[in-house]
Amino acid sequence: MAGLLRLHRERVQPGWIDYNGHLLDAYYLLIFSNNTTTFMEHIGLGAKERAEKGHSLFTLEVHLNYLHEIIVGQETWVDIQLLGHDAKRLHVFYTLYAEDSPQPRATSEQMLTNIDMNLRKSVPFLPEVQARIEAIAREQADLPRPANVGRIIALPRK
Amino acid sequence: MAGLLRLHRERVQPGWIDYNGHLLDAYYLLIFSNNTTTFMEHIGLGAKERAEKGHSLFTLEVHLNYLHEIIVGQETWVDIQLLGHDAKRLHVFYTLYAEDSPQPRATSEQMLTNIDMNLRKSVPFLPEVQARIEAIAREQADLPRPANVGRIIALPRK
Repeated sequence: MAGLLRLHRERVQPGWIDYNGHLLDAYYLLIFSNNTTTFMEHIGLGAKERAEKGHSLFTLEVHLNYLHEIIVGQETWVDIQLLGHDAKRLHVFYTLYAEDSPQPRATSEQMLTNIDMNLRKSVPFLPEVQARIEAIAREQADLPRPANVGRIIALPRK
Repeated sequence: MAGLLRLHRERVQPGWIDYNGHLLDAYYLLIFSNNTTTFMEHIGLGAKERAEKGHSLFTLEVHLNYLHEIIVGQETWVDIQLLGHDAKRLHVFYTLYAEDSPQPRATSEQMLTNIDMNLRKSVPFLPEVQARIEAIAREQADLPRPANVGRIIALPRK
């Protein structure tokens, strides 16, 4: 979909497969986490900036929905949508795909926060990072809200 | 707390540490996932039963709250609370601890479903597994509901 960010591709590694013969739940999140790292580069928080400025992102909260299995060797990619932001937080939504199907394999909603790595506490984004975030928010302003946003986990009512 | 299940301990491995110098978000979930494996043994879905009966559990949905950092080498353990169940689903809540502090490091609420691995679809639990689940539910019937159950992810309202 136009406006979504697609920044990173990677293949499912043999060590990520479990006794059920498919990608283990935790490694879906590793793929999402690697996409966060690429997204950080995209907004000016890559390795160089992290070292020079002492800012990084920490994960506060994650929601994952597992939709379809993924097997070893498949290439994956993620569409990134910025759902919201404030002075120090990012609310993001990720949709994971793999190469043999156009159907989403999983979604992840996350809250990330900007950290001063010397103070080890949350602080406002650097001005140049804030500007990049606001530019993405403007580009994505008209995107629809994904269906899995704001879910709670519960058994169906009888 | 009496009634919670504490089944599995493991140490944080060097390969699980990220560029922020602490346990990467995905490896918190790996620790929770390994606890699920031990919980499966506890309810009669260990490796032997999975091979003989062809039943296993798949993860449908996960919610994670990251509360405190964990560093390399620390031993971790998880308290498991069964929040609910039906004929083929388990609604579980995990609280993660590490050895140097009594404070929870993270929580995870999850929905798991029983799978017939030949059909690759969800089916009711085996009777002996259902009986183990119901016994745990009875033992844990008086436990309080953890604070992080049923959360949605959202920025604070201004």
